[in-house]
Amino acid sequence: MSNLVVGIDIGGTKIAAGVIDAPCNGASARVLARYISRAHAGQPPDDVIAAAVEAFHAVLAQAGLQPGQVAGLGVGFGGHVNGAAGLILTSSNLPAWDHHPLRDHLQDRLGVPVILENDSNCAAWGEYRFGAGQGSRYLCYVTFSTGYGLGVVIDGKLYVGATGTAGELAHTVIHPDGPLCACGKRGCLICYTAGLGISRLVRERLDLGEQTLLRELCGPSPARVTGEIVVEAADRGDRVAQEVLAIAGRYFGLGLSSVVQMFNPDRIVIGGGLAHVKRWLMQPGFAALRENIHPVLHDSAEIVYSQLWEDAGIIGAAALVWEIKM
Amino acid sequence: MSNLVVGIDIGGTKIAAGVIDAPCNGASARVLARYISRAHAGQPPDDVIAAAVEAFHAVLAQAGLQPGQVAGLGVGFGGHVNGAAGLILTSSNLPAWDHHPLRDHLQDRLGVPVILENDSNCAAWGEYRFGAGQGSRYLCYVTFSTGYGLGVVIDGKLYVGATGTAGELAHTVIHPDGPLCACGKRGCLICYTAGLGISRLVRERLDLGEQTLLRELCGPSPARVTGEIVVEAADRGDRVAQEVLAIAGRYFGLGLSSVVQMFNPDRIVIGGGLAHVKRWLMQPGFAALRENIHPVLHDSAEIVYSQLWEDAGIIGAAALVWEIKM
Repeated sequence: MSNLVVGIDIGGTKIAAGVIDAPCNGASARVLARYISRAHAGQPPDDVIAAAVEAFHAVLAQAGLQPGQVAGLGVGFGGHVNGAAGLILTSSNLPAWDHHPLRDHLQDRLGVPVILENDSNCAAWGEYRFGAGQGSRYLCYVTFSTGYGLGVVIDGKLYVGATGTAGELAHTVIHPDGPLCACGKRGCLICYTAGLGISRLVRERLDLGEQTLLRELCGPSPARVTGEIVVEAADRGDRVAQEVLAIAGRYFGLGLSSVVQMFNPDRIVIGGGLAHVKRWLMQPGFAALRENIHPVLHDSAEIVYSQLWEDAGIIGAAALVWEIKM
Repeated sequence: MSNLVVGIDIGGTKIAAGVIDAPCNGASARVLARYISRAHAGQPPDDVIAAAVEAFHAVLAQAGLQPGQVAGLGVGFGGHVNGAAGLILTSSNLPAWDHHPLRDHLQDRLGVPVILENDSNCAAWGEYRFGAGQGSRYLCYVTFSTGYGLGVVIDGKLYVGATGTAGELAHTVIHPDGPLCACGKRGCLICYTAGLGISRLVRERLDLGEQTLLRELCGPSPARVTGEIVVEAADRGDRVAQEVLAIAGRYFGLGLSSVVQMFNPDRIVIGGGLAHVKRWLMQPGFAALRENIHPVLHDSAEIVYSQLWEDAGIIGAAALVWEIKM
């Protein structure tokens, strides 16, 4: 049977697809072709599915393959996913997905075996099998970009819990009386960190009328502020941007501290776009991690950066096809 | 080989011992004899060990047994424990235990196989094997008494993590700028809940000079205030006691919410003395749990009370002897 698998990562603003040579026993995976589309943002499920189907065929065509030549499709999805049931439970980034049977839907449409899993879980699995997580027995992978996700691999198995949503770090409460989160609760970690938290913190400062470069960089729509823009302002010496990132970095570390307290991992792999922001986010984050774990846990986990970076999601989704279907 | 095992639970103020008939395949365990001692509180390790050795012999004598007639001794210890290494890492309740090789020490002294594990983990295992946790695949057991502990059983195996301390709920930070905790960090969950948190909250109110029955009930030493005394005052209509318990109940539920977000259990078993305080602690706790988990997780876990209650620790410690030694 073919070693080739397609991996697709469906996020809030981007669909990434790849043809992966993901041998079930090997220690490395190759991405033979890549395809990225951004057409589906904000669209209803049918349009997102159409974009995913298009990505599947486009990336196969790029690699010169027919659907029959791949062993299956692994799909990572940015939201609450029950992988065992093949269901999207809900998504904060994409509308109208509640209880959508995406796995079977794609399987019927594409005629290949499909597995479905949360995007951070896929990336965790990718790093475990082929990246910076290899050899770890108690692995926690965190992705730090627009959202703040966690995937856990214990004893060589993805840990997803009873309904598939274990490791729901972003919506763990860190300030019981904090601001209202999009999920309806108060003071979730994601209100203070990652792209979503950074945007909220910046809007708060702009609303207070503070003087900052961010006003100019964000233009008339402060809703469009991204982590990248705030990092740029911080690099250019903007005090407000630096203060916001110091908060976001601290809460990133507080999130890590909960991970360490709860899972006691031997290794933490850090991925996602904002993991590259060492000075403004990673450094205060690691300081906060150390400050907020019990002293007995100091240095209990090795902390490393991703090896697969933006490929972690598609490689991991693809590798899960082997894991689950064989 | 004998089915009989001794279980000992070493807490901050109490050593409980029992002879347990803990068959490796059965669904029920019997406690054949019980022994409790309180002589060791605040004493150094040598005295605690002497008290444990005395408890071991006393409970065997009560059951009419010789050491050679039991398969081993399981020891639960209230502190950070690396069970695989047989080490106490540290204890907040008992002084001078850092990196103490308690398992080998007891084994040499008693001449029977000894296993060592954190006390909440023992109780979790007891409930899983013989109590309210039976049949659960993703079990979280919380003990709510002087401290607030968590034990996790995944796929029929105790989950302890890389250095044995997984599920360190009490010292997970819930208020990054909160009061200083005994562990040296700020705003740990245990600052607001369980016996330790309740005492702290009461002292805060007494220091403010507030009028409360607690002043009379606690006597001249408010350091001696216990959860039980505060419950008594609340039952008698004391407003300060009721307010303190409302806070403690809420933070108990916030702790449960982190457990649900992180581990996504199919069942939560609640044990410990304060779990009996339904009106002042459990009811606000369950309300806070529901408010502080992502809506997609509502009703994801069945919540039940302990079946083994104060025997959970000694039964679980004993049952771990079978699990680990066989």
